[in-house]
Amino acid sequence: MKDDFRFLRACRRQEVDCTPVWMMRQAGRYLPEYRALRKKHSFWEMCKTPELAVEVTLQPLRRFELDAAILFSDILVPLEAMGSAIEFYEGRGPVVERPIRSRADLEGLKVIKAEEAVPFVMEAIRILRRELAGKAPLIGFSGAPFTLASYLVEGGGSKQYQHVKTLMYSDPQTYHRLMEMITDTVISYLSAQIQAGAQVVQLFDSWVGCLGPCDYREYAFPYNRRIFEALNRFNVPTIHFANQASTLLEQVVEAGGDIIGVDWRQDLGRAWQTIGYDRGIQGNLEPVSLFAPIPEIHKRVKRIIEQAENRPGHIFNLGHGILPTTPIDHAKAMIDAVHEFSAR
Amino acid sequence: MKDDFRFLRACRRQEVDCTPVWMMRQAGRYLPEYRALRKKHSFWEMCKTPELAVEVTLQPLRRFELDAAILFSDILVPLEAMGSAIEFYEGRGPVVERPIRSRADLEGLKVIKAEEAVPFVMEAIRILRRELAGKAPLIGFSGAPFTLASYLVEGGGSKQYQHVKTLMYSDPQTYHRLMEMITDTVISYLSAQIQAGAQVVQLFDSWVGCLGPCDYREYAFPYNRRIFEALNRFNVPTIHFANQASTLLEQVVEAGGDIIGVDWRQDLGRAWQTIGYDRGIQGNLEPVSLFAPIPEIHKRVKRIIEQAENRPGHIFNLGHGILPTTPIDHAKAMIDAVHEFSAR
Repeated sequence: MKDDFRFLRACRRQEVDCTPVWMMRQAGRYLPEYRALRKKHSFWEMCKTPELAVEVTLQPLRRFELDAAILFSDILVPLEAMGSAIEFYEGRGPVVERPIRSRADLEGLKVIKAEEAVPFVMEAIRILRRELAGKAPLIGFSGAPFTLASYLVEGGGSKQYQHVKTLMYSDPQTYHRLMEMITDTVISYLSAQIQAGAQVVQLFDSWVGCLGPCDYREYAFPYNRRIFEALNRFNVPTIHFANQASTLLEQVVEAGGDIIGVDWRQDLGRAWQTIGYDRGIQGNLEPVSLFAPIPEIHKRVKRIIEQAENRPGHIFNLGHGILPTTPIDHAKAMIDAVHEFSAR
Repeated sequence: MKDDFRFLRACRRQEVDCTPVWMMRQAGRYLPEYRALRKKHSFWEMCKTPELAVEVTLQPLRRFELDAAILFSDILVPLEAMGSAIEFYEGRGPVVERPIRSRADLEGLKVIKAEEAVPFVMEAIRILRRELAGKAPLIGFSGAPFTLASYLVEGGGSKQYQHVKTLMYSDPQTYHRLMEMITDTVISYLSAQIQAGAQVVQLFDSWVGCLGPCDYREYAFPYNRRIFEALNRFNVPTIHFANQASTLLEQVVEAGGDIIGVDWRQDLGRAWQTIGYDRGIQGNLEPVSLFAPIPEIHKRVKRIIEQAENRPGHIFNLGHGILPTTPIDHAKAMIDAVHEFSAR
């Protein structure tokens, strides 16, 4: 039946036969079929060729009883389209060639119209909806503004976020201008994904946990809020995942999202209490748990299922992306255990 | 007057004329006089030569109105004494030459008697007490067991803590044995520091924030608790700093410490409420704040002072170690602002 997937029902906090489960980064390096394809194509090629993105998106669904597919792409795709040259180097992560450190550095950047700027993403979504019809719903996604701004200012991954915070504290005008441009881009990007067929969208605020509560309020919250408000016009559930952000949880909820994603550092039951039961919750198995023996994985899955108390609106997931060396049979054991242990 | 330093009074939650302040890693790379000395000596030489450790410890006190000195050393010193070869490479951080991944890897390790195994630390403390007499109190320190175990198992710094958690989940016996050995070592190490003259000791649990609440309870809490219990026989205040550990805060308090150190991710006022006013609190200025213009630093210092409400038992500090490129005049501005804004 159209749209009656377990995952979509949970997104709307409707009753389900058992808890739906998917894994952040489920389309990725831990799968040999992904690595085989990756040998033949550059990372950007994989993101920008709809047929390749589709193939990678579908790979984990052929192996596991996953309740949703998530578009294979990278959170840096819209930044590159904004005009920032970004390279992926093996084993080093992405490198932004001209990091933004001053007002003048904004010159080369523009807000994108996503359907024109990254048509390959929308094309992949359209193909995926056909391929997945009757099988699984499709999640679209974007990085959140602070996380994307961090990449542009730091020039890549970061430990201290020294450059982005220095810009924030020393030249707030430039920082806010950058955040506005990124926010407009994210709104266009997620709207286009929904219009192309994404049935749910997730906003990933992977790095925002480096901010204290006052800084989040001033420098990140208004932008996330604006995105969720803009998406309100679509009748599509939204997931808001802020990583390592337990001290920001109330503000994350206030910013928006039908489902709030939480990492493993918080007790899921306690987090849901803080979030409020008028929202769903997604999470939160420690990704390294999948390296444990299967009985230990079972114990940990069971604990999370118990914390969620079979309330409608729990989507099982890892607390962060699956790690590249994760044993595949352990991932399978986790997914099957979620369905088994949560059967109503 | 003996022991009537502002810092020691705050450690005992007595009234003070203004809030005492020191900075984690205040003896370190952001100071040109440190870098000059470091050019002439290896990092291990600096740690192991009492005269050099003393000199580096005193350097920041010559520049700033700091309310305490902290022994210059490294948290890996006791691990090396336990029998693990550790090298410091420029710009790469410490590398443990034979990481511990199995029971057999424990063979080469032994619990130390600190006064015999690391006499240079105790000698530095004895010299420092003479040098600092009437000027400032001296803090001793150790890494906490989980943080130290992480170094030994990961082989250095880590992002995912995959190896230490895998050991924990897959071979808990070996993990617990390692933690017992480290805990006994830490107890000997901190006891010897106190006996040599350290007036306060701080336990640094820098990496424990990667654990969820259940894992902390099972795999870290009992060891931290045992350390604080063992230190009870000394009449010396203890500081317990767990980094990025806001979801573990209640357990950290339960484990022990007269003063609980908090990072900048939590609101200090709210954290103190959770901790309880029968303990002191230390923190929590975001270290990157020191790159902001001085008026912005003032604003942020003032906010923390206000959150502490001039309650007895607040020790001002950064939320984590001072960064190597921090402008010195900004550090000075922060220290002076703490005294000025908090004057009773």
